[in-house]
Amino acid sequence: MTAQDIRRPPVHPTRLAFALVGWVLLCFAAATMGGFFPPGEWYAALKKPSWNPPGWVFGPVWTALYTMMAVAAWLVWKRGGFAAQRRPLTLFLVQLALNALWTPLFFGLHWPGAAFAEITLLWLAIAATTAAFRPVSRAAVWLLVPYLAWVSFAAGLNFTLWRLNS
Amino acid sequence: MTAQDIRRPPVHPTRLAFALVGWVLLCFAAATMGGFFPPGEWYAALKKPSWNPPGWVFGPVWTALYTMMAVAAWLVWKRGGFAAQRRPLTLFLVQLALNALWTPLFFGLHWPGAAFAEITLLWLAIAATTAAFRPVSRAAVWLLVPYLAWVSFAAGLNFTLWRLNS
Repeated sequence: MTAQDIRRPPVHPTRLAFALVGWVLLCFAAATMGGFFPPGEWYAALKKPSWNPPGWVFGPVWTALYTMMAVAAWLVWKRGGFAAQRRPLTLFLVQLALNALWTPLFFGLHWPGAAFAEITLLWLAIAATTAAFRPVSRAAVWLLVPYLAWVSFAAGLNFTLWRLNS
Repeated sequence: MTAQDIRRPPVHPTRLAFALVGWVLLCFAAATMGGFFPPGEWYAALKKPSWNPPGWVFGPVWTALYTMMAVAAWLVWKRGGFAAQRRPLTLFLVQLALNALWTPLFFGLHWPGAAFAEITLLWLAIAATTAAFRPVSRAAVWLLVPYLAWVSFAAGLNFTLWRLNS
């Protein structure tokens, strides 16, 4: 417990629980984009690198990543809400909107070039979010590390699929 | 009723109702971004043009626009679901993600320049969505017209606020 925690009045447990549910719902709203675009014939027909993961990997990975993302945002939100954590939570929402945008660009419109440009912005937004979470909650940072790692990998895969198929 | 409707098996009313609720929830998930960023001191202190609407206008306008947007997507979805309307609905989801991104850029990070660049992409995405909805449902097009008009106005306002305050 830090000096900051002592100064801050405790948040009611019910409010904490509702907030956690809220962050999970918001993150899974972004996740529904993935549900709209199951990889279809277009994706199946793409030339793929040898290290392209099998299709069944993506669902469970993203479910875990969205859950960790929601918990990370909630851990930061707990420390004084939006009023106190405006910048880190804003960056979090920016990365969430960019995350929601990638799937329709890649799997919907079949624009791997535009999707690659977009995922580099997403990577920067996640990196900025992680940096902004650092002074607030170390646990939140660790919860975002797998996400940043996966998006780095996904960006590499997006780039490779774009170059192999253009 | 067109020839197309006759060929298509009717969708169960319960399924139709659930789908409408789903589209409304998805659009209001994007709308929650606005809820995170009530215009605060930064916005109040900006130099504004004479034609800047009073703050209370934005909430009711956006509530109406998100509702119309959801109904428009549902009207298109009704005509064969995602399988038949993949491209118009994909464009709709792209514009929805871009819509969600604007608020944290402008009201969250206070980046009116980046927000203006982003809202021009949003405008293009809405225009493309409207064009793609046209052969599917005229009613859906009319439901998007006020949205496109408002975003045109909002883009002009965003540009003016950016130039007046930089």
